[in-house]
Amino acid sequence: MITLTSYVLGRWHEGRGTAATLHNPTTEAEVARASSAGIDFQAVLAYARDTGGPNLRKLSFAERGKLLALMSAAIHEKRDELIQVGLENGGNTRGDAKFDIDGATGTLMAYAQLSEKLGARSFLVDGDGVQLGRTARFWGQHVYVPRTGVAVHVNAFNFPAWGMMEKMACAILAGMPVVEKPGTPTALSAWRIAQILVEKGCLPEGAYQFVCGSLGDALDHMGPQDVLAFTGSSATGAKLRGHANLVRHNVRVNIEADSLNAAVLAPDVDASSDAYGLFLSNVALDMTQKTGQKCTAVRRIFVPKERVKDVTTDLVAQISRTKVGDPSDKDVRMGPLSSREQFDDVRAGIERLAKGGEIACGGSKPIAAKGYFLAPTLIVARDGRDATYHREEVFGPCAVILPYAGDAATAAELVNLGGGGLVCSVYSNDQSWTEQFVLGVAPWHGRVWIGSDKMAEQALPPGMVLPFMVHGGPGRAGGGEELGAERGLHFYMQRTALQGFKGSIEASFGNATAVTAG
Amino acid sequence: MITLTSYVLGRWHEGRGTAATLHNPTTEAEVARASSAGIDFQAVLAYARDTGGPNLRKLSFAERGKLLALMSAAIHEKRDELIQVGLENGGNTRGDAKFDIDGATGTLMAYAQLSEKLGARSFLVDGDGVQLGRTARFWGQHVYVPRTGVAVHVNAFNFPAWGMMEKMACAILAGMPVVEKPGTPTALSAWRIAQILVEKGCLPEGAYQFVCGSLGDALDHMGPQDVLAFTGSSATGAKLRGHANLVRHNVRVNIEADSLNAAVLAPDVDASSDAYGLFLSNVALDMTQKTGQKCTAVRRIFVPKERVKDVTTDLVAQISRTKVGDPSDKDVRMGPLSSREQFDDVRAGIERLAKGGEIACGGSKPIAAKGYFLAPTLIVARDGRDATYHREEVFGPCAVILPYAGDAATAAELVNLGGGGLVCSVYSNDQSWTEQFVLGVAPWHGRVWIGSDKMAEQALPPGMVLPFMVHGGPGRAGGGEELGAERGLHFYMQRTALQGFKGSIEASFGNATAVTAG
Repeated sequence: MITLTSYVLGRWHEGRGTAATLHNPTTEAEVARASSAGIDFQAVLAYARDTGGPNLRKLSFAERGKLLALMSAAIHEKRDELIQVGLENGGNTRGDAKFDIDGATGTLMAYAQLSEKLGARSFLVDGDGVQLGRTARFWGQHVYVPRTGVAVHVNAFNFPAWGMMEKMACAILAGMPVVEKPGTPTALSAWRIAQILVEKGCLPEGAYQFVCGSLGDALDHMGPQDVLAFTGSSATGAKLRGHANLVRHNVRVNIEADSLNAAVLAPDVDASSDAYGLFLSNVALDMTQKTGQKCTAVRRIFVPKERVKDVTTDLVAQISRTKVGDPSDKDVRMGPLSSREQFDDVRAGIERLAKGGEIACGGSKPIAAKGYFLAPTLIVARDGRDATYHREEVFGPCAVILPYAGDAATAAELVNLGGGGLVCSVYSNDQSWTEQFVLGVAPWHGRVWIGSDKMAEQALPPGMVLPFMVHGGPGRAGGGEELGAERGLHFYMQRTALQGFKGSIEASFGNATAVTAG
Repeated sequence: MITLTSYVLGRWHEGRGTAATLHNPTTEAEVARASSAGIDFQAVLAYARDTGGPNLRKLSFAERGKLLALMSAAIHEKRDELIQVGLENGGNTRGDAKFDIDGATGTLMAYAQLSEKLGARSFLVDGDGVQLGRTARFWGQHVYVPRTGVAVHVNAFNFPAWGMMEKMACAILAGMPVVEKPGTPTALSAWRIAQILVEKGCLPEGAYQFVCGSLGDALDHMGPQDVLAFTGSSATGAKLRGHANLVRHNVRVNIEADSLNAAVLAPDVDASSDAYGLFLSNVALDMTQKTGQKCTAVRRIFVPKERVKDVTTDLVAQISRTKVGDPSDKDVRMGPLSSREQFDDVRAGIERLAKGGEIACGGSKPIAAKGYFLAPTLIVARDGRDATYHREEVFGPCAVILPYAGDAATAAELVNLGGGGLVCSVYSNDQSWTEQFVLGVAPWHGRVWIGSDKMAEQALPPGMVLPFMVHGGPGRAGGGEELGAERGLHFYMQRTALQGFKGSIEASFGNATAVTAG
């Protein structure tokens, strides 16, 4: 069995003492052990700040972008091997693993491409200059400069490749060194990527450290220039946000928590339309891709009440086409849950959700003697306002159909009962219905995805996070924001207002090509 | 004696039970009492959300901007009376009171002016649209929409007018109702303003509530769409940020805490230059204006070590011109500290600072038999690295000269020992020295002010917060951001990524003039 190591202080460290065990969720066999015991986290953070930070900050955006391109190429080169690791440790089908790995390399490339536009500088200019005095002589300009601390990233188990790389792309391009902690159950994939990045020498000394296992007392050593970005459960997110040392030093914290993402079918979308087909295929995809273990996956499906029966029939038919089983089998489209803990959680969750409705397909019963297998489960709620469905999140291949009256205002009201989401998708060809709905749900969501006949052929699904659009959401979803092209860099930088003589400010910090100081 | 009331749930409420007492800091006479006892804070927040929010959100930016203009005019109309109140309750000279009141009306007008540019819409478009699919048919666009909760503002005692209005300008223009809590020692000024706003009917029902005294259990009732903005001490800021209910719901919190703002004299600035004159007058102004009770006031003055003696002499001469005494006396330029608590804190602080250096002028001894009067106090530290000076903040008419080697790197390093500041001012005519210094301190500051010969005649001083530049700072300064033109609205809004058919998105949410849906 493999023992996963950590890459800290410029070398590989093997943890001593009690280790966590990773399993193959298809066979339940042990595949690896991981422990970070013995790591001096204060030294790890200092090494990032004192060695990694200066090494990155002496590079321009364009040069840092080249590092991202290198990373992308290095990971892509090992794609087949990584797909195999995702299968073994994550229970991923080939499609699931590609979604994770190609998401990682694609995001890195998108930011590499963005870096070319940001060019030879190492800070960002924010907006236009402003006249502050009686004449333009006294001038103001906002800039973003890289923070001089370390970015600690606590990643989730479901996207060991993409999750680590989307955070790293922004931090590294912004000029901050990182300490990456993967979700332990699927750390084998993340560890293999860490090995690849280190072997290829993709990043300058100190810019990348990787901790397999617990972060120990690292949070106690964070300071005002450091940032913490977390992806995972709301409960853990709240624990991190309220951590006494982070609060004391006003350490920036970004939380991306799972949410009760909604899909809404508007009454104007009839069963023969492209928008309806898109609705069915996207909902079914969200329920089964990565075995429903996506933070953006649909959990609540709002359907006009008189159409609930027909839509249920159509959705069950769509879902039934998904073959579930051993992900190494080429025909299989959905594998097991990623871990025993996930498996147990999802089973218990399905049972809670089933109380207020009827199970249309699937259920909490395992569908194999071995491995963490469940069938895709669709539940039809009796009451669209039942609080259970707007509170209980089941992080697996399970969603609930909720009936609603059909008007945009009620749809928005019910969706917002979820308390804040990463993404809400809506299917309508009615411009005014859509506009009302979108304005109603936008305050509660980081992203709203609008499906219609006109874009059906070209649309990427709502569960897919794209590098140039922000990812995050208010309230339950964590209150954070990631990605969104240049926006994703801001978390790792300090916005500073500069005031002084216009000629001097423009010469050193202006938006245009360099102006000679007057 | 006046009993200050609160304006909640559409009526004036007189607190029952134990009240806080406000004093005239010149005479120590009691001037008012304040208590919020008996207020149902859960109802106050609900009233803002359910009545104030909808009333504001049905208005466009331009219409909300007109409300700000009305507020500005209403306050300006009572300027003379408010100056008198500032004198009685805050110990303000006429100049100090005007700085606060004109700052308030000026900021409201600046945002009223900005609203015209934002126009007839009620949401902001963020950046350009992005092509997401193979063709432009699948399209992305970011927008900012108003949050549907309530903005709770906890204001500081030192700027009862400006502090309340700079926060309100952004919240109201963004479309969020407010609950304003003034700093109790100077609440008489804030209360008078509240009366004026209510009497004039400046704001729609529920959009403005005013709580004189404690906020009770209000924080326990805040939720995911609410925001809390606080100005005051780091310690209170940390308590608010770590509040269990705010953490649980990922309530947005903005903290603007006092900081150890630095002024740095570069070695190239000789005693005959305009920049040197500007340095002396700005430092003296910061030490004496509002009796040094400004969150942006200079606390640490960095001077090349061989010039410490001369600069001290010049600064003492400059400060000595400030007549201290009863602020109702027209010749007086500096009044008392605002409260007994402030007076005691500042005296103790001066004694702590004096241990590592020499007192060049002033000291901790009261200069009058009655009232909270101290002399402007300049201390010359023996060691520029003495940790006391980078940790202890004395919120009064006191600053410390710290010697440094003269190079930009050391200057930046020492300045940054303060752990994060609202503003750092630097005086230099050397472009390359300045550039190096600015890039060195920018990660630790919300604002960097660059003084030079070329702007000396037109410059507004670094202690003045301008509506179109951000105000806030990392680390010790709270990690927050306010103002900065449109940037100041973002805290009160949710950024949402919209994805869908280009024609539909542009028609409803695009940047350009309305496009007909294709």
